[in-house]
This record gives sequence, C-alpha cells and structure tokens, in this order.
Amino acid sequence: VNASPVRVGLLGCGNVGGALCELIAAEGAAVAQRTGVHLQVVRVAVRDVGKPRPGIGPGLLTADAASVITDPTVDVVVEVMGGIEPARSLIIDALKAGKPVVTANKELMASAGTDLFAAASGAGVDLLFEASVGGGIPLIRPLRESLAGESIQRVMGIVNGTTNYILTRMTEAGARYDEALAEAQSLGYAEADPTADVEGFDAAAKAAILASIAFGAGVVATDVYREGISTVTAADIAFADRMGYVVKLLAVAELIDAGPTVAVRVHPAMLPKTHPLASVRDSFNAVFIEGAAVGELMLYGRGAGGMPTASAVLGDLIDAAHNLRSGGAGRAPLLGHARIWPMDELRSQYYLNIEVADRPGVLATVAGVFGAHGVSIRSMEQEGLGDEARLVFITHTARERDVQATLAALRELDAVDRVGNLLRVVEAD
Amino acid sequence: VNASPVRVGLLGCGNVGGALCELIAAEGAAVAQRTGVHLQVVRVAVRDVGKPRPGIGPGLLTADAASVITDPTVDVVVEVMGGIEPARSLIIDALKAGKPVVTANKELMASAGTDLFAAASGAGVDLLFEASVGGGIPLIRPLRESLAGESIQRVMGIVNGTTNYILTRMTEAGARYDEALAEAQSLGYAEADPTADVEGFDAAAKAAILASIAFGAGVVATDVYREGISTVTAADIAFADRMGYVVKLLAVAELIDAGPTVAVRVHPAMLPKTHPLASVRDSFNAVFIEGAAVGELMLYGRGAGGMPTASAVLGDLIDAAHNLRSGGAGRAPLLGHARIWPMDELRSQYYLNIEVADRPGVLATVAGVFGAHGVSIRSMEQEGLGDEARLVFITHTARERDVQATLAALRELDAVDRVGNLLRVVEAD
Repeated sequence: VNASPVRVGLLGCGNVGGALCELIAAEGAAVAQRTGVHLQVVRVAVRDVGKPRPGIGPGLLTADAASVITDPTVDVVVEVMGGIEPARSLIIDALKAGKPVVTANKELMASAGTDLFAAASGAGVDLLFEASVGGGIPLIRPLRESLAGESIQRVMGIVNGTTNYILTRMTEAGARYDEALAEAQSLGYAEADPTADVEGFDAAAKAAILASIAFGAGVVATDVYREGISTVTAADIAFADRMGYVVKLLAVAELIDAGPTVAVRVHPAMLPKTHPLASVRDSFNAVFIEGAAVGELMLYGRGAGGMPTASAVLGDLIDAAHNLRSGGAGRAPLLGHARIWPMDELRSQYYLNIEVADRPGVLATVAGVFGAHGVSIRSMEQEGLGDEARLVFITHTARERDVQATLAALRELDAVDRVGNLLRVVEAD
Repeated sequence: VNASPVRVGLLGCGNVGGALCELIAAEGAAVAQRTGVHLQVVRVAVRDVGKPRPGIGPGLLTADAASVITDPTVDVVVEVMGGIEPARSLIIDALKAGKPVVTANKELMASAGTDLFAAASGAGVDLLFEASVGGGIPLIRPLRESLAGESIQRVMGIVNGTTNYILTRMTEAGARYDEALAEAQSLGYAEADPTADVEGFDAAAKAAILASIAFGAGVVATDVYREGISTVTAADIAFADRMGYVVKLLAVAELIDAGPTVAVRVHPAMLPKTHPLASVRDSFNAVFIEGAAVGELMLYGRGAGGMPTASAVLGDLIDAAHNLRSGGAGRAPLLGHARIWPMDELRSQYYLNIEVADRPGVLATVAGVFGAHGVSIRSMEQEGLGDEARLVFITHTARERDVQATLAALRELDAVDRVGNLLRVVEAD
C-alpha cells in the first residue's frame, strides 16, 4: 500500500456524488488493502454549500467549481454534475492541468467526446467514463480493453431502464402505455416530464457513446436516428407475444463498412423471445455485442441508480489513481471521423398494422401497395373491429425507404382509416 | 503508433494458439492503429515441429519451450499449452526474467494461482488470465478492475458449455442424459471421455479462479465441493419445469464473512425460470455477480472455442504490451488465505425424490423422518409407478447436514426402494 492518499476533487454531489462519498467512506479501507490505492475526498463543489450533507465535512464544500480544478491538493477530478457547461470547460481545464478525470456525464460524452478524448490524449492523462452508459454494468472497459483485439460488428442494447420497465409492465401485466408510465412515475423510475426517456433521447446519447467506443469513430447523439415508445400500444405487444416476440426499446450501432461507416439508431423493436436481450426485464439494462472472433456477448445489470453508478465511478477512480501512481499512461481513444449510414438504407423485417374498412377487395388493394414498392409480406393477420378490420403484417427483409414509401401510399388509400405503429423486427439467428 | 513491435513468444499452438496466430494476422494492423501496439509472433514452441501450420513460418517453430523464455527477442510470453508442468515452471521463469505472461490455463491457475501471482508481483510484471474462465467473456478484467471498489457477495455461473448443452437438450427436447451426451459428443461439444465436464471438474477449476479474484483469497480446485450432472434424470427436469424451474450446473462462490471465509461449490441446481441465468441456453456460459453497491450483474457469451478464447488472450496481450511500453506496472492480485466454509453448513432449499412402496402410512413415516431432522417440507407431489409411488419434495430452507442426515435415514426405511437425486434450489428474489 502506497501510504500517501490520492486526493479526489468532486464536481457535483447529487445522487451519484453522494453515493460515491458513501461508498468511499464504507469501502475505502478495503480498496486500499486490495489495490494499494488510498482515496481521499478533499474538495466537493456544490450549488448549495449550506445544505447538510451527512458524512461530508462542511470544510470540503465549495460553490466555486473552478477552484476544485486549480486546487493543488486535488490529484484526480470526478465530474458528476451533469449537463454540457460548465462540465465541459471544467473537464478540459482539469485535463490540461494534468489531472485525470472520471465522469458519469452521458450528455457531454455523447456531444463532445471526440474533443475531450483529444484533450486527454494531448495531456497524457486518463479520461474515464464507464458510468456514462449502463450505470454499474462494466461496458466501456470491456469494449476498450478486453475487446481491444476484436473486430466488433454490432452493439445492440437495452440502455434505458425507464422504458424497459414500462414495456415490461405492458407485456407482463397487460397494462396500457399511459398506465405503465404512471406506475413508473409513482415508483420514481420515470420523471414528471418523461420525454428524455420515453422519446429515446437518453438512449440515443448512450448509443452514440457505445458506437464511438466500439468502432473508434466519433458519433454524436444527433447522428442517431431516434423513435420513442410513446406510440407503442397494448395491441402491438399482444401481437408480438403471439408471434414469439417481445417489444423492447433498442439502441443499435452497426459497422456497415470499415471506412468506418456506422449505422446508429434507437427505436422500439420486436425481438425474438429466445434472444438473450428478450429476458432483460423491469428496469435492468443489457448490451449485446457481436464480434468476429468472440461471437456473441451480453453484459447485463442495473443501468441507473446512485449506488450502481457510483460503483462504476469508483472502479474508474481506482484505475485513474493507479495509473497516476504507477506513471502508466492511460489509453485515451482517438476517434476518427465516422460516416453515418442513412436510416433510409436500413434493411430489416418490419411489423406494421393498419385499420381498414371491412369490405371485399381491400386486402387486395393493400397487398398491391406493398408489391408496388417491392416489399414482400411474410405473414398477415386480420382481426375484425366492428365495421373495420385491423390488418397486421410482418414483412420479409425490406429496405426502410421502400417500407416508408409503402406507408405513405397506404395513408392515401380511401379504405385505410389509420396507419398504426411500424416496428423493426430483429430476426432470430 | 510506437513503431517497434512487441514480440510475442507462444508456448503451444493447438486450438487456441492457432486461432491466436490467425487473429493477430487478420487484426494486427487494425490493433496497431487503434491501440498503438504492434504485435509480432516471433517464436512458437510446439511438440511436433514437422506438422504443417498454415500462416506460421516454419522458422518460428521450436520443440524447446524453455528457449522461448530465454530468447532475448521475446518480450511477452503467451502460454496456451495447458496442464500443470512444464507450463508452471515456464511461466515462473518468464516472470522472473521480467517478461509479462498471458495464459489461458485454468487448471494451472486453479491450482497454483497464488504462487504465480506472487511471482508476477515480485517481478513487477503482468500475469493476465482472462481466457482461463468463460472463454471470450470479459470476466476477470471486470472483476479485477471495473469492480475494484465493489464488495462482492456472490458469484454464480454457468461456466461449462458441454453440460449446459446437455441440460438444454434434456429440457427443450426431452432427451435422456445419455442421449444428450451422445449428441454433444457427435457435435464435438463433449469429449470421448466426458468426465472432466460432466462430473464438474472443469467447472470446479473455474469456480476456484472466480472465487480467488472476487474475494482476493487463494481458493484452489480441490477446495471446491463438486457434483456433476450424470445422475440428473428426465424426471427431475420435467418436475423442475412444472414447478417453474430449470436445472443448470452452477458454480457458486459466496463470501460468508470478511475473514475471508468463502463457500465454493459446483453442483446441478434448480433455478427459477425468471432468473437471468435460466435463459442461458446451449453451450453458452454466463456469470452472475452480486455486489453491495452495483447490485446484480451478468456477463454472458461463448465460454469455449478457439476463436472466442483467442480473442480474450489477444485482449490481455494488448494490455500487457501496452503496460510494457508505457512502463505502467500491472496490478497482480495478492491473494490472502481463505477459510473454506464446509458444505455441511450450506443453507438452501432442496429438491429430492424417493421411490416408495405404494401403501398406506408410508408418507406419514417419510414425513416423520424429515421432521425428526428439523427439515421442513415446502411442497410434496406424489405420482404412482405401478406398485410404487414416487414422492417429490421441495423443502423450506434447511441445513445441508440435516438434509443429508434425512436422506441417510430414509435409505434405512423398508418402505423406501430408492433415493433419487438431491438438487439445491436457488430461491427467487
């Protein structure tokens, strides 16, 4: 054990920061014994220095975040304040001052990752961000280190616990979307304004980070094609169940060619029940990785929450402290430019349902529209709805552009009353 | 990119070694670009230098393994020959010569890990062994690094693909044990002599390694309580299915107290169908980890095979090469002494089935034996078998010692014809 402590400056002390302080207090001695790294929190920047914070000496608190960076007694900086600014500037300043940074900030990493990595690499210090995706699940380190020799082809994950909880309740309890959302809100899984979760913004940021690390190319959140789950109906889920599928909000990053050209998207999808991701229930997260040599991997766990996220921050902090002490340089990824594959070019199977007038000839007309756009139907189911009928289709593999054109043409038909959800279907192996 | 290559000496060139050479040939340039590490295989020790090995220059081959260690052009040693000796001596010699070692040798790590880590630590060089458990699944690095700040309470895994394949076929196709074993043999999943797999020896070695790393204490394969799957019957599996369970061969390592006292065992168990490990099918492996802060994690993938295992070796090799180049010291775990918790003290629910004469009063006698040993019955099912009946019990949580005493007493009863399998039951959360 190296006797002199590694001194930690904390930017932010909310849910994750508070849990981190608790964890260091509880596990610090054991960590020192196991790893030789003795961590000591010496400075904590918070908005409100007057608020009582059990276990954190009031003398450590400051409202001046910049002073944590410049404080010569701070060896390593942990950023858990969230948001883009001032987090971004503070991290850049810390790296330039030669201080390793550990961050849990997905929004920042998904918008400015390339610049931050370049700053870390330039300064020769660590920038670690395990906690930015998948909470406590080891994802970034396995991708960067364990799979450093692997040609990764696809990363597909359930990376938002709120939406997975809602979809699980819709599937297992037959709840409607609004009922399941209200339940998630009452349990604290969803916020009063659930937009960031249910419309896929949170998942899109995580998809951008995963794509960047898996393919070594800068992908930002706005590169990600995005659809949420707020239009998924109980009928969609019941149909999926009958056909051997579950509906999950998936974040998918695929390598199209070595350029690299990368396809990145977030949308609800029908997943075969036998797929390992299909059994990821409630608010759990998991990421499924396909590599040329390693085959299929899945990493599963708690994707959010103060303690699981703090556990990931602490793992990074020990790593950064070890590297600082041993003089070993970290391995900052240097991200090249990525070409983003247009969503129009996606090839997938599709589920779609439309409501039509229940009269002779309608199905032939509808089928004709599919055919005219080169979209081949794999299966069709018709159910009566009074004077109407609901037609539910699963297509063979088709091009997104052609399916969208089919939908547009269907909307123009007199006999079509409503075009329902379009869901991509993940094919069984 | 550091221009000078890191030169690799290989001990052994079978399934994994051959795949590693292929992988370095295919991915070497990409690895150099991504990580700055340029790997070059310069020496390969094999038993038969005359055998043609596509892609490996005959000039690299030698039958003298020791010469690979002493060769001054070899920077890093990869041991994929297997077995205890000469692998152990060669690794110790390499470490003493200041050469980092990457090994896939579970048998060796499960018997001499403590000594090998001490040698690595003494020499200040890396000894990496990701490939020794779970093939290509990132397990050892997440446990050692991502979870360095975590107080791990339990590690429970499906770590043998052969037995998982056999149990999957028995569950899904209703096959008998001998049929499923023959099928596994015909597919190359099981060896002609399947003992090491089906009797749990392979899983016990992996359990010892996982326990050592999770709890920082030296556990060897012979410390592990071990039962195999060869006595599991189609009737056991059918009953499990009716009750909402699947039967899996589990490797379980639990921290009993911080001493540390560690319980480590391998045996078939009934696992609730809702448990994440329950959906691990065919020859896949997965390890479920429970930590105080992080909660539940699962790491899933291909637990064997040349390419997946070589992928893990390559990840370690890049890590070792990076540390060698950057001057960063690796983090060799220093394992303390572990007290092994006796199996007799296990507390679990149990499944057991017995065949009895079908006459009045027998159930009362049998139930009396349970009661006399303080074992409480949670559920009982009786099915007729001609003149006999099969009684199937699941107990409430009981102590292993008391259940074994119950079994011994049941065997003494005249009315009991046969005492069938005893399976531990993993409780649902």
